[in-house]
Amino acid sequence: MLKLSQLFYSPQTTHQQAILSEEESRHCVKVLRMKKNDELHLTDGKGNLFLAKIAEPHHKKCVLDIVRTIEQTPAPLYHIHVAIAPTKNIDRIEWFVEKSVEFGIQQISFVQCNRSERKQVKLPRIQKIALSAMKQSLKFFMPQINEMVSFKSFMANLTPDETRYVAHLNEGERVFLKDVAQKHQKYCILIGPEGDFTPDEVTLALNNEFKAVSLGNSRLRTETAGIAACHLLNIVNE
Amino acid sequence: MLKLSQLFYSPQTTHQQAILSEEESRHCVKVLRMKKNDELHLTDGKGNLFLAKIAEPHHKKCVLDIVRTIEQTPAPLYHIHVAIAPTKNIDRIEWFVEKSVEFGIQQISFVQCNRSERKQVKLPRIQKIALSAMKQSLKFFMPQINEMVSFKSFMANLTPDETRYVAHLNEGERVFLKDVAQKHQKYCILIGPEGDFTPDEVTLALNNEFKAVSLGNSRLRTETAGIAACHLLNIVNE
Repeated sequence: MLKLSQLFYSPQTTHQQAILSEEESRHCVKVLRMKKNDELHLTDGKGNLFLAKIAEPHHKKCVLDIVRTIEQTPAPLYHIHVAIAPTKNIDRIEWFVEKSVEFGIQQISFVQCNRSERKQVKLPRIQKIALSAMKQSLKFFMPQINEMVSFKSFMANLTPDETRYVAHLNEGERVFLKDVAQKHQKYCILIGPEGDFTPDEVTLALNNEFKAVSLGNSRLRTETAGIAACHLLNIVNE
Repeated sequence: MLKLSQLFYSPQTTHQQAILSEEESRHCVKVLRMKKNDELHLTDGKGNLFLAKIAEPHHKKCVLDIVRTIEQTPAPLYHIHVAIAPTKNIDRIEWFVEKSVEFGIQQISFVQCNRSERKQVKLPRIQKIALSAMKQSLKFFMPQINEMVSFKSFMANLTPDETRYVAHLNEGERVFLKDVAQKHQKYCILIGPEGDFTPDEVTLALNNEFKAVSLGNSRLRTETAGIAACHLLNIVNE
């Protein structure tokens, strides 16, 4: 049985060796007091789980030798990208990150909208939460998490092959996401701030081939809408 | 536009009069400093929204006259009852309550399982969170929230007409809840503690006509499983 406390993460893992980050090194060498030649589990956040052995138990830069590959999880046939306006209360966004990683998410973008009250998001903290949720859910996939950008900048740098949705509460026709989302797509879904997108933002999204969608009959908070979209797109694909 | 701060709740509302609870009275009279004949919105938590007028602005027992019924939301054609083992960290259960009320839930039971670490849940605090989520999501339906009981006691007092599911991670066949849940039912779904149900608990549930279900491919925390079940059953009905 895989012990969660002994699951480590290093994105720069080759099939021979890996180096743990400062925080992971500290946890390994200082907290768990692991020694040279002790074995542990390691994921590269790209679907692979390795058995590794400590080569150099350095408390800031612990070096591991890969013993063998235990599991190679194939990447899912779909790709969920949630672009969300961070909430005023950062706990709510952190909760969204934790839950979406549990359900499965490939990319998270933070978008500063006109009505956003929050002007910054500390990425290292968000990444720490995503890492902890990845370990907890034994997913072995670490999502890409992007620095916050303005709504306009987000629109100017869209990924070409994503199927785009915008979940807004403004006037205008919307379809239920469950009824339009096809299996095995790359989805990008935009979730607005408390107080919703401005009409100009909705227009700009529609002009950029975003389809206006609803997430159901309930009036959801920003972070709940984010998790609902992520859960729904996972369900569509299961 | 309905101001959330001026939406009040009283379960004992007739079509003539209502009395606010001590906490709602204090909020109305002390915090918002509302006076005799001031108007406010009131829900009975049974789908009705009223316009009301303050008859006696008492700070512990504020009396309201109902002016007129603004909205009568029909009860949904389905009934979601989540019976969940409370988590060690109470924040996680509080979060489950908030989110499930946002999505829509009719009944919440707390069940003490063999592997539950938490032995009690403070109902007034849970009810306060549910109330706040109901107001926030403008749902006008307050779920029934039951005192924690033991797993055996829960099994001995099942509601006869509920379609029963148990989401466990033990060995044995399970079907995906999405594939078996029919529209317009009364559902009861059991969610286990961190560490899962014991095999004996699963057997007892199966003997009581609970169907073993999975909530998808992801390994979810207790509170995430609760919200996933609630969201999924709402989606099936939308």
